[in-house]
Amino acid sequence: MINKIFSLEQIRVFKNLLRWTVIILPVSIVIGSMVAFFLWALNLSIHYRFEHPWLLYFLPFAGLLIHFSYKLYGKTSEKGNNLILDEIHTPGGGIPKRMGPLVLVSTVITHLFGGSAGREGTAVQIGGSIAHMFSKWFKLDTKETRMLLTAGVAAGFGAVFGTPLTGAIFALEVLTIGRIQYFAIFPCLIASLIGDLTVSAWQVHHTTYRIDTFDIPNYFETYFSLNILLLTKVVIASIAFGLSSLLFAQMAHRLKKIFLSLFRKTWIIPIIGGTIIIILTLVLGKPDYLSLGVDAEYPGAITIPSAFKEGGSDTWSWLWKTIYTSVTLSSGFKGGEVTPLFYIGATLGNTLSSLLNAPVGLFAALGFIAVFAGATNTPLACTIMGVELFGGEYLIYFAVACYTAYFFSGHAGIYSAQKIWARKG
Amino acid sequence: MINKIFSLEQIRVFKNLLRWTVIILPVSIVIGSMVAFFLWALNLSIHYRFEHPWLLYFLPFAGLLIHFSYKLYGKTSEKGNNLILDEIHTPGGGIPKRMGPLVLVSTVITHLFGGSAGREGTAVQIGGSIAHMFSKWFKLDTKETRMLLTAGVAAGFGAVFGTPLTGAIFALEVLTIGRIQYFAIFPCLIASLIGDLTVSAWQVHHTTYRIDTFDIPNYFETYFSLNILLLTKVVIASIAFGLSSLLFAQMAHRLKKIFLSLFRKTWIIPIIGGTIIIILTLVLGKPDYLSLGVDAEYPGAITIPSAFKEGGSDTWSWLWKTIYTSVTLSSGFKGGEVTPLFYIGATLGNTLSSLLNAPVGLFAALGFIAVFAGATNTPLACTIMGVELFGGEYLIYFAVACYTAYFFSGHAGIYSAQKIWARKG
Repeated sequence: MINKIFSLEQIRVFKNLLRWTVIILPVSIVIGSMVAFFLWALNLSIHYRFEHPWLLYFLPFAGLLIHFSYKLYGKTSEKGNNLILDEIHTPGGGIPKRMGPLVLVSTVITHLFGGSAGREGTAVQIGGSIAHMFSKWFKLDTKETRMLLTAGVAAGFGAVFGTPLTGAIFALEVLTIGRIQYFAIFPCLIASLIGDLTVSAWQVHHTTYRIDTFDIPNYFETYFSLNILLLTKVVIASIAFGLSSLLFAQMAHRLKKIFLSLFRKTWIIPIIGGTIIIILTLVLGKPDYLSLGVDAEYPGAITIPSAFKEGGSDTWSWLWKTIYTSVTLSSGFKGGEVTPLFYIGATLGNTLSSLLNAPVGLFAALGFIAVFAGATNTPLACTIMGVELFGGEYLIYFAVACYTAYFFSGHAGIYSAQKIWARKG
Repeated sequence: MINKIFSLEQIRVFKNLLRWTVIILPVSIVIGSMVAFFLWALNLSIHYRFEHPWLLYFLPFAGLLIHFSYKLYGKTSEKGNNLILDEIHTPGGGIPKRMGPLVLVSTVITHLFGGSAGREGTAVQIGGSIAHMFSKWFKLDTKETRMLLTAGVAAGFGAVFGTPLTGAIFALEVLTIGRIQYFAIFPCLIASLIGDLTVSAWQVHHTTYRIDTFDIPNYFETYFSLNILLLTKVVIASIAFGLSSLLFAQMAHRLKKIFLSLFRKTWIIPIIGGTIIIILTLVLGKPDYLSLGVDAEYPGAITIPSAFKEGGSDTWSWLWKTIYTSVTLSSGFKGGEVTPLFYIGATLGNTLSSLLNAPVGLFAALGFIAVFAGATNTPLACTIMGVELFGGEYLIYFAVACYTAYFFSGHAGIYSAQKIWARKG
């Protein structure tokens, strides 16, 4: 009986998992190392601009440089994250090897000259293109290539934010709106764990965020473990988070179209985009919305960490960051959308917390994950990210915020290659 | 442009969510109240037996009573959780209204006389049958009925363990091996939140567990945020957790078949089952493996909370609980498998922690969630349960444990009505 219970199935599963571990190991060490290098270079370039603020005036030329690099050497790299998603959905089109290095250098240049962008796009593209390279070397079949590519995305994402489980779930959840399949959960989990470990091994560290403790005033009875009034405020704020995801996705899509219809000579677009950023910064009189928004250029600057404190953000900071980032990315600069989405969410959360008389740290954290959840249609990954970044105490609020934002962000997220399995409601 | 961005879609989604909130509210308040009553009655019956241990000798007769209650009044209720899952997969067969009260009373009787069983089955059946009742009253169509039933399962599960997010994810994840669909995430989340709140409102409390803090000895470099040696131990232990899930599921299935083939008069089965439990308890000389296993019958008894401490469990406690519970449930007693699975996991974790020289609290917690994950094929819900019960600090170990156990538990979990979307590997 024991023999029949522990049948050959377990041995087959074991072999299969072992095989994937062996395949994933080198892939994710390479991805993790490249992401570590990227984070190091990015940090250097951001702080170099802090000391040399005049670099901003060269942003249009930096855009021109990136534009022509992609034009001349990029092949299909221009399609970015969507190329990776397309290749996972229907392998065959291929991903150019140069995609990784190209997006890495372009992102660093974007940030060196003050473009408002993120870094997840870069990490995902590094992950996807390296995984694709290995899938050729290992001569994997179509199904296995899909798994390895998905794992590459997980490794890149997990490594760049230091959130391994989020990376694994994100890679599976981002493919299709409305469901998650477990087909690649094991490779993804291994890949993002090793990716994250590799970054740590290179001694590259991530920003840590903290939600200040707060007393929940108890309007109802003391025996409620959940506070209904706070939950209601979270839902209201999260509808706003979802709508701001929608605004971001639409603004980026439409600006790109508008630029393309206005300028037939596409190299003019980055010059215009860079110039708009310069003008905006001169008009606003402060550089807060440039670049990543994590480290402060000067004491008192509005950053993601500052948004977790009262007074750490202006009322309209979220809107300015939306405009800055849409302009930057739709005019051909490189990076990603996620860190700007964190910024938009955290500052909007800050603003809403004073409107709703709610704890600022919690609402900044909710905005941080929920705006991202809405824009990428990955509510589960973002709920998990909440736990990985801020701890498990507020899990249920994280889930409510991410799913509410997801429902209100429409179906056209920032990744056009995402498929729709089921409408939202 | 603003008008076009915030199109009618958001208003439609809003209306839809509002409609579901209104539908869910009464359903989950009723479910939550019935679960609260169940938990109260269950607690009473368990402690009554503690004071009157001779009740155990009437276990065979209690089994007989349950057997004939189901035979005479049960209609299709005998199919238990599988009936609910079947009805969600293909609505139409119906769920008898009496299922809820019947399983509630039978479970309380099972525990009053010392049967080794759980409570999630009861909660899920209460949730499913009440939701089905409301779906008739509300005249919902097939698709909506599926959603409401799923939400009912979420409400029951979330309420019985005080883990709302786990309840919602469990209800969606348990339906099909290999994927999660979001079709009912909103009703599920609302339902399990309100179910949980209702239980709190009735002042019924849940057991709290605590993982003692431990120093992770750092065998590698200090800059690893994750400890590779500990992770390896977690993987080894989790393979054992997965195999023990498999053992449990197989033993329960096979014992049922053996009983049915041996006794053509099925009413003999509960008498035999009850007698085996009595004999086992006399042979072992202690009542630790009877009933739920959460509260201690005497100081020093082996319980789930005691397994979190060094020496709080015997080497083979997990195997005894597996045998006790398989015998109890396969001979017609009622309850559920989940709390016994928690017990098996926590005690196996305790045993493995001394074999592997690993932190006992952490490994008890990992076993707690991972054996359950393997037996029900719900690794994600169990990962989340880890956070809801033990906090977010060990999230990544929770995920690795649950998914590893899931991979090694085979495809025949404890719910035969579960569909397979994709093989595990």
